[in-house]
Amino acid sequence: MATNFTIDPAGIVRALLRGAAQVMFQNNAWCGLLFLVGIIWGACAASMPVVAWGALAGLLVATLTGWLLSDSEEEMNEGREGLWGFNGILVGCAMPALLDNTPAMWAVLVVAAAMTVWVRRGLNAVMAQWGINSLTFPFVLVVWIFLLASRTMPVLAPEHILPLQTTDAGAAAMAAAWLKGIAQVFLLDSWVAGALFLAGLAVANGWAALWAAVGSGTSIFVAWLFGASETGISAGLYGFSPTLTAIALATVFYRPGLRSAIWALAGIVVTTFMQAATDTLFEPYALSTLTAPFCIVTWLFLLPRFIFDERQRPDHTSWHKNGSEPPKQR
Amino acid sequence: MATNFTIDPAGIVRALLRGAAQVMFQNNAWCGLLFLVGIIWGACAASMPVVAWGALAGLLVATLTGWLLSDSEEEMNEGREGLWGFNGILVGCAMPALLDNTPAMWAVLVVAAAMTVWVRRGLNAVMAQWGINSLTFPFVLVVWIFLLASRTMPVLAPEHILPLQTTDAGAAAMAAAWLKGIAQVFLLDSWVAGALFLAGLAVANGWAALWAAVGSGTSIFVAWLFGASETGISAGLYGFSPTLTAIALATVFYRPGLRSAIWALAGIVVTTFMQAATDTLFEPYALSTLTAPFCIVTWLFLLPRFIFDERQRPDHTSWHKNGSEPPKQR
Amino acid sequence: MATNFTIDPAGIVRALLRGAAQVMFQNNAWCGLLFLVGIIWGACAASMPVVAWGALAGLLVATLTGWLLSDSEEEMNEGREGLWGFNGILVGCAMPALLDNTPAMWAVLVVAAAMTVWVRRGLNAVMAQWGINSLTFPFVLVVWIFLLASRTMPVLAPEHILPLQTTDAGAAAMAAAWLKGIAQVFLLDSWVAGALFLAGLAVANGWAALWAAVGSGTSIFVAWLFGASETGISAGLYGFSPTLTAIALATVFYRPGLRSAIWALAGIVVTTFMQAATDTLFEPYALSTLTAPFCIVTWLFLLPRFIFDERQRPDHTSWHKNGSEPPKQR
Repeated sequence: MATNFTIDPAGIVRALLRGAAQVMFQNNAWCGLLFLVGIIWGACAASMPVVAWGALAGLLVATLTGWLLSDSEEEMNEGREGLWGFNGILVGCAMPALLDNTPAMWAVLVVAAAMTVWVRRGLNAVMAQWGINSLTFPFVLVVWIFLLASRTMPVLAPEHILPLQTTDAGAAAMAAAWLKGIAQVFLLDSWVAGALFLAGLAVANGWAALWAAVGSGTSIFVAWLFGASETGISAGLYGFSPTLTAIALATVFYRPGLRSAIWALAGIVVTTFMQAATDTLFEPYALSTLTAPFCIVTWLFLLPRFIFDERQRPDHTSWHKNGSEPPKQR
Repeated sequence: MATNFTIDPAGIVRALLRGAAQVMFQNNAWCGLLFLVGIIWGACAASMPVVAWGALAGLLVATLTGWLLSDSEEEMNEGREGLWGFNGILVGCAMPALLDNTPAMWAVLVVAAAMTVWVRRGLNAVMAQWGINSLTFPFVLVVWIFLLASRTMPVLAPEHILPLQTTDAGAAAMAAAWLKGIAQVFLLDSWVAGALFLAGLAVANGWAALWAAVGSGTSIFVAWLFGASETGISAGLYGFSPTLTAIALATVFYRPGLRSAIWALAGIVVTTFMQAATDTLFEPYALSTLTAPFCIVTWLFLLPRFIFDERQRPDHTSWHKNGSEPPKQR
Repeated sequence: MATNFTIDPAGIVRALLRGAAQVMFQNNAWCGLLFLVGIIWGACAASMPVVAWGALAGLLVATLTGWLLSDSEEEMNEGREGLWGFNGILVGCAMPALLDNTPAMWAVLVVAAAMTVWVRRGLNAVMAQWGINSLTFPFVLVVWIFLLASRTMPVLAPEHILPLQTTDAGAAAMAAAWLKGIAQVFLLDSWVAGALFLAGLAVANGWAALWAAVGSGTSIFVAWLFGASETGISAGLYGFSPTLTAIALATVFYRPGLRSAIWALAGIVVTTFMQAATDTLFEPYALSTLTAPFCIVTWLFLLPRFIFDERQRPDHTSWHKNGSEPPKQR
């Protein structure tokens, strides 16, 4: 239970906005504001404003839950940096995008968004000793549970999958796919949302914006090279996990540099194959992979704890506070 | 290898009966006796006396294996408290309930019951550092292996699934489902067995009996609310894992109290959805989820190590000997 | 990055040959040479010489990757003992055996073989505290990713599964199946290759050769007893994982002796059922289990850390350098 009962409206708004930004590892309220604008735009453009409402609800519920369950000053600091809310906002996007807009959907959205807070705390406790953390996996795990449950609990009727927009072939379609890969982090099929997310990243950290773009672009190239379906590619469905892997490996857990750039590129390529692999694995269940490919590959690339940079401490990967930019999603 | 060769018949009987009781976390021989009576009743009522013989065989084999492999006084104490046998008795119920009554079934029943002892020891060694233990997962894992193997090894012919009893609708059917949810912990579709299990719990620990009832009842309500199949609900198939989650969270790993009650209710609700989710996941394999939903959700609710009670030690959840009732299933 | 730039051609050849031998836990270049001869024979006998080229490429790529990423003298010693290459040579056998011989297959073969090096380092870091290591699981995990990806990336067209040779019934067929079980460790359906692998083991360690034979033979008996398909049995498909379990439990992680022999026999029997279970589990995906049954069962039999031998140190299973034969695949 939170020990600090002083109400600080500006602090609360900042913590909420940072919760949006932390989905892409940014501890920056302006970035989060642009992310929220992107979500609202993308949801409305797809005639699914319920997704924007869900995102707000998930963010609020998870942040409130984090505050209620916080039992240390360290936890409170995590909350101030937006680390309570980022899984919740993703739950809030996913539930109305993948399930019908019913009271039952809203009930499980609230339960699932709250649950991400303690699942994150538990999984982080398990993983800390290996120098990794749970990333967005609490969101992934919790949404999987309720999506799979919906198949035998018909009151949670599955939504018709968001219709993929038809795109003209050619350069414009490729540019759109490249931005949609970034937008699909929040399950949005909208190149405008992707551009807004990129702008948000640029406000917080230029390297993160650059690598998001590299991650989405490289994954499109690899998926196309190996013959993946053009419908999937042009909707950005191969891009969202590699985008997150790129930001994580090139800018968060390692400092930008030549070696970390090579490492991040390898991670992007492997995440693209992991996306295809998990798509195959979940196909019989018509279950979305969500950001699981990003989580698994990022873990596989962090666990060996390679040191790429003299300024890293010799006993850890660089993400343990190694400089002016403390990494997030601890 | 056991270092203590003095034969103590009363001690052996007590260890065996406690093995039955530890399935629901009770270190109490009278409770175990009532559980055995419940198993025999439920097996005979379903015209499957082989299930009762299997339960006895599994309990004996696992307890004997634990004694043969014991290499410390601490292990011997676990044995005296029934911690060798509880996975074995579950294996002994599951094998004849899910596979044909053949010599091959008996052979794998013996192998699987013995195996639970060292799988439990190994998994507990892995999990100890996170403040959790393997619960009934050794039983789950081992039975899954042999059930899946039976599909490509036709000498292990699958039993026709136990026919679910037709029940009249209405209050009587709901009361029966509520007790059957408790009986299904041992794979029994019998409200009388459920009542006997509840009586056994009451003998050992009134809180455990209360929460078993709350767990089964709440899960029926949640499953009904979200439209789960009435056949499954009335057979108690949504209730057995939430029953165990309820006992574990409200009375074993946390002391009974307001906060732990809220936490246990949340765990019961999530376990009900987890039951539906794993049902979906295993449907292509016609594989029973066994008590996996209970194990997974209980782990997710213990890993964050919240402290709900002043008497808990600050560095652990309360289940590390925090009072007069040392918790079991370590 | 490797700190030692002196080129030692004999040392490189020795490290490569040991990489082949370490698939069956042998730190012995002559053993590795016989394994390579067996692979070449088996590949050519099946009119698939590409499998032999793949094995060489995988071995070279993984060993080179290990050298490039090595950052300590301890890592360099692992490399000298062949521990960089054994997962890579398995990747090199599996990719051309399971995917069409195309440039895309070669591209993922190189990526996957390299990746095994850091996946092994990462998984070993996770598992070290429990007294186990990743065994051949890096190979298993990485090949699964690319095989599953190939289903949605048709440029990675799946190979027609290697046609199983028709075998006459009777004693000759059983003897062939017994040797093929050993050959299938490298995905080869050839009794001559199995005999060469057995010879290689005998050169390095007589106990390992004996137990490989016991492992393959026992698994055939168990699979036959429980009615497994004769086509699978006679192709050695039940034998390769139990062969590895047998070598690991009876000669590597425990010293040869009566108790470890009983333990290894139990492990062989359980691995045979685990093979059948994973075959069922992966059947909807037409995915090979590779050596996953060996890894999982060996972990389950090592985690309890039983002590079978006075010469073992009391705080570990015997595989932590307890005598003249330091165990491999750390």
